[in-house]
Amino acid sequence: MPTVVETFESKILRGNPLGDPHVRRIPVYLPASYATGRRRYPVITLLSGFTGFGEALLNRSAWTETVPERADRLGRTGRMADAIIVMPDCLTRYGGSQYLNSSAAGRYEDHLVHELVPWVDRRFRTIPHAGGRAIMGKSSGGYGAFVQAMRHPDVWGSVAGHSGDMYFTYCYLPDFPKCLDLLARYGGRVERFLRAWDRMPQKGDPTLHAAINTIAMAACYSPNPRTPVGFDLPFDPRTGELRPRVWRRWLAWDPVNLVARHARSLRRLRLVYLDCGTRDEFHLQYGARMVAGQLRRLKIRHVHEEFDDGHMNVQYRYDRSFVLLSRALARR
Amino acid sequence: MPTVVETFESKILRGNPLGDPHVRRIPVYLPASYATGRRRYPVITLLSGFTGFGEALLNRSAWTETVPERADRLGRTGRMADAIIVMPDCLTRYGGSQYLNSSAAGRYEDHLVHELVPWVDRRFRTIPHAGGRAIMGKSSGGYGAFVQAMRHPDVWGSVAGHSGDMYFTYCYLPDFPKCLDLLARYGGRVERFLRAWDRMPQKGDPTLHAAINTIAMAACYSPNPRTPVGFDLPFDPRTGELRPRVWRRWLAWDPVNLVARHARSLRRLRLVYLDCGTRDEFHLQYGARMVAGQLRRLKIRHVHEEFDDGHMNVQYRYDRSFVLLSRALARR
Amino acid sequence: MPTVVETFESKILRGNPLGDPHVRRIPVYLPASYATGRRRYPVITLLSGFTGFGEALLNRSAWTETVPERADRLGRTGRMADAIIVMPDCLTRYGGSQYLNSSAAGRYEDHLVHELVPWVDRRFRTIPHAGGRAIMGKSSGGYGAFVQAMRHPDVWGSVAGHSGDMYFTYCYLPDFPKCLDLLARYGGRVERFLRAWDRMPQKGDPTLHAAINTIAMAACYSPNPRTPVGFDLPFDPRTGELRPRVWRRWLAWDPVNLVARHARSLRRLRLVYLDCGTRDEFHLQYGARMVAGQLRRLKIRHVHEEFDDGHMNVQYRYDRSFVLLSRALARR
Amino acid sequence: MPTVVETFESKILRGNPLGDPHVRRIPVYLPASYATGRRRYPVITLLSGFTGFGEALLNRSAWTETVPERADRLGRTGRMADAIIVMPDCLTRYGGSQYLNSSAAGRYEDHLVHELVPWVDRRFRTIPHAGGRAIMGKSSGGYGAFVQAMRHPDVWGSVAGHSGDMYFTYCYLPDFPKCLDLLARYGGRVERFLRAWDRMPQKGDPTLHAAINTIAMAACYSPNPRTPVGFDLPFDPRTGELRPRVWRRWLAWDPVNLVARHARSLRRLRLVYLDCGTRDEFHLQYGARMVAGQLRRLKIRHVHEEFDDGHMNVQYRYDRSFVLLSRALARR
Repeated sequence: MPTVVETFESKILRGNPLGDPHVRRIPVYLPASYATGRRRYPVITLLSGFTGFGEALLNRSAWTETVPERADRLGRTGRMADAIIVMPDCLTRYGGSQYLNSSAAGRYEDHLVHELVPWVDRRFRTIPHAGGRAIMGKSSGGYGAFVQAMRHPDVWGSVAGHSGDMYFTYCYLPDFPKCLDLLARYGGRVERFLRAWDRMPQKGDPTLHAAINTIAMAACYSPNPRTPVGFDLPFDPRTGELRPRVWRRWLAWDPVNLVARHARSLRRLRLVYLDCGTRDEFHLQYGARMVAGQLRRLKIRHVHEEFDDGHMNVQYRYDRSFVLLSRALARR
Repeated sequence: MPTVVETFESKILRGNPLGDPHVRRIPVYLPASYATGRRRYPVITLLSGFTGFGEALLNRSAWTETVPERADRLGRTGRMADAIIVMPDCLTRYGGSQYLNSSAAGRYEDHLVHELVPWVDRRFRTIPHAGGRAIMGKSSGGYGAFVQAMRHPDVWGSVAGHSGDMYFTYCYLPDFPKCLDLLARYGGRVERFLRAWDRMPQKGDPTLHAAINTIAMAACYSPNPRTPVGFDLPFDPRTGELRPRVWRRWLAWDPVNLVARHARSLRRLRLVYLDCGTRDEFHLQYGARMVAGQLRRLKIRHVHEEFDDGHMNVQYRYDRSFVLLSRALARR
Repeated sequence: MPTVVETFESKILRGNPLGDPHVRRIPVYLPASYATGRRRYPVITLLSGFTGFGEALLNRSAWTETVPERADRLGRTGRMADAIIVMPDCLTRYGGSQYLNSSAAGRYEDHLVHELVPWVDRRFRTIPHAGGRAIMGKSSGGYGAFVQAMRHPDVWGSVAGHSGDMYFTYCYLPDFPKCLDLLARYGGRVERFLRAWDRMPQKGDPTLHAAINTIAMAACYSPNPRTPVGFDLPFDPRTGELRPRVWRRWLAWDPVNLVARHARSLRRLRLVYLDCGTRDEFHLQYGARMVAGQLRRLKIRHVHEEFDDGHMNVQYRYDRSFVLLSRALARR
Repeated sequence: MPTVVETFESKILRGNPLGDPHVRRIPVYLPASYATGRRRYPVITLLSGFTGFGEALLNRSAWTETVPERADRLGRTGRMADAIIVMPDCLTRYGGSQYLNSSAAGRYEDHLVHELVPWVDRRFRTIPHAGGRAIMGKSSGGYGAFVQAMRHPDVWGSVAGHSGDMYFTYCYLPDFPKCLDLLARYGGRVERFLRAWDRMPQKGDPTLHAAINTIAMAACYSPNPRTPVGFDLPFDPRTGELRPRVWRRWLAWDPVNLVARHARSLRRLRLVYLDCGTRDEFHLQYGARMVAGQLRRLKIRHVHEEFDDGHMNVQYRYDRSFVLLSRALARR
């Protein structure tokens, strides 16, 4: 049975502040056995990275399997038990929601937890409790998976985060001056940049990344309805000086600052998996080590791995998480 | 009516030397009106760039339309007349065939001209002659479009090449020492590199591009059945010295060396369009200027444009070629 | 009269902790008129950037004047009044002292203020009070000039800082993960790296800069005699986690945090000049804007300029500071 | 006895076409024993790289010895016999002369061979025949050393070339499109670029290197008095198309094309040494391998070494050549 791409009409995302669609297409991978039997299946929710979304996980490329192809292969070779894989779409006009609620971007956390999860349980033959549910992802998706698992241990029973955004001091802050350099071309005015952004014939130019990523994160971590753009930048757009109050709001969402507070939730999880490449261009291996260190000190069972690679094109690591999640989901 | 993805079983590609599949999936975009009427449509064949293939043109991304979405929009706004768009798959184990016949890679030119074209005419309500057919593409696809149009003016009546491979002296040769640097890690032995290549967990690392692109081009331009790998490298793999006889075989396939010989064919075309960004990372704007200069001197009608951008993420230029091709295809 | 290169035997630097020489060669530029008259001259002390030192300011290069050549030309064309220019040597084994006292690197501030200044006044016909003395420099030298002028307004009467180290959050912190990446090759052990450092056949490789610069700054800003290397790194060498207490010690030396406290001293200066390129690779234009903003709010007269360039090869900016300093030094 | 810096007034360089000075300062290193004895010494002539010149070899830097310091150390430790080291200045307005005669740049080969050599023999107690003379250099200086030794075996008896310009197809040609990109900012007109060049406040910007290096080489390899600038570019400045006749003039000066013709001369040399880093940014290791291969096939004794480094900051390799040259010069 092929992957089905469902159309989901979200009440929560309707009228979201960035004008993003509230109707989203959600691919759902169903294992081969799904069509022919009556049994129920565990569900893995797979969150995309920055600028990603569910359907893009079905994109074909010369050298990389799609998520369904990967799951099929791992299933065929007996390494992964049958599971449903749900691929949400939480993309925004700025490139991503971090799977959080924000007055600037929309209520994506609510959408995920309060809309998608129940809908999946209604729509498919799932194991409809936390033990049967895992959440995973890479990069911003790894961030989302980790944070959502901590915040909703009643919903998710296992988590795997690959190269997830962690230790914002190293993964975001070094981009601030680069963002400032770009904003300077727009008179240091983020509104003006965003108007230009919407009209750019292409948005893939590498020099744009630091700027749009910083802006997207500001919309997620420091929304402020009393501003024209709906969020506070963590720095003065002319001098670049950090705004400590805004920056602290960001840091409050940094996984390295969330673990201790959510220790009880994390302890309830069947699997806590995190990994990162030792040459990650965003230096995420350091955040992962800090998180792993905290888990260890808090005596929370977890698997922490490093591998010799950078941040990009590391989907082959899903082979590892799919297998581990599959075992965790199979446990009674 | 949605884009249909057809499965095509190629006789010509069966048993190809690189072990690539002979069954390919070919997306065919059909305009909205196709389903309801009985009229015949012109056909645009759209060739992918290096590491690309037809289905990848349907890949979704945050900021870029798919080819069908683009055609739909241009049709809706009246800028482009209805046309069928065929998206072949000529991908190989090394990343691409340049749409040529090669004893090292396979007979992709024959596949395109002798299999796909007739099949499209049989399978769909096409205008089954050169005047109703256009060929276009970007990068290696722009190369393929240009070369195929020159070689088969009886098949294709119009051509549009975006940022196509031209003037190999600037677009390929500077990669040779980089390829040598990489081969050095494999003892300067291309067989050893290719064995490693097949097993690499990821093939997207930027340092690999110069090497695999050079190898892929060698398989296309200088095949040699009497060698273990099936092709000659254009240089000594240890000293890097150019092998003039091999390099000349490459140059024989350089568009700047093909135009004069194919002037008659080019003159028959309804549209000859080529463009390139003025900051192309592979310096292809220079090749395009040389080709345009030759066309001008040979008094061959053509459109040559430059735009302020690089090589990547410039699909927005299809808006230009789709519109021009559409007009050319509509001519009597 | 040519520049004289004096040999200075420092008591203060004798037995310094890094084993650097206590005998230093100090070029002193004397204007043409010095030899023939009996008048006294103002003194500009020019501090070198990281890895620099006085004699290196005499280095010849194809396109750039030496400091004496520049002063001669500005003098000849009447733009700069005659002045003595002293070029101290405060280089250390790690690349620089930031012109501070440190138990890890040596007492370079004392050397500058308590040894060099009196020696210059004894040795040459100077105007031996603050009004006749200026301090200037670029990069780390701009830092040193600015900090020394704030701390010793009784010694220096004018200051010019070009592209000076400011706002450590942008100019140093983004290097920390790069330093960590390099330390990882040495098991995350700074002692082991430093042993390798001393033996490296070349130390100019660009990948080394972030590491040695971070280490040199730690020796300046967070010395700690109770550690094997004599200083604290501002982060855990394995996880990279910032050590807030150490980082705060660094920040206490950041010019953006020194201005308010030294407002009275700064107000006494005849000239406060700072500039920076708008494309500075270390993002120092932002720190300069913060400092200029504070000076403005504190109503401290100053000149703040920006220019369209990066951090390197901007000695042509000395033309600007030499002229302004010259005027300030001439004032009664 | 210290290095003396002699002022040399060249008749040959007087009125040179680029307006460069005909009076040059030539550092001459004299070994410690020179002052006290009456013996004669062998002479090593050390040629600078692009943008370099004799006096710059005396420049002080934090981590690298000057040439005299290096020679002193090698002498002190008994690894190198006493020798005079002459450091010519063949710099031009464009960065270098390649030590050739050119109607566009000046007669630097003649200056070297017909002026400097006899003057050194007159001025110092030298061993005034080829056996007592060695020529060496790095990069463009390595090129110059190699070419001069081949062309004047009656003058030079030994040669050492470090990372010398060789195989122009890899070391220069890949810069042509980069040069074209820069020329495009000046309307594709080299005269206009050169006028801007003379006025640039700084000339060290890395994006300039490909352009000025290409222009300098054109002035050396393809002078043409019938052009406004005095030389032919090897490509059309708008389309970039190689001009085969001009390019062949360049290739005629490529060491890989000179060895066979000068085999007899090379065979007369006491030492032929060449080396290159295996990560040379200009890919010069490949040219060195080609040259070494030819020497081997021609049965010309030589030493060819490779080392694990790039092109920059590799003066430590002089330790190797100084020692080998020293032995060759000592032979009877």
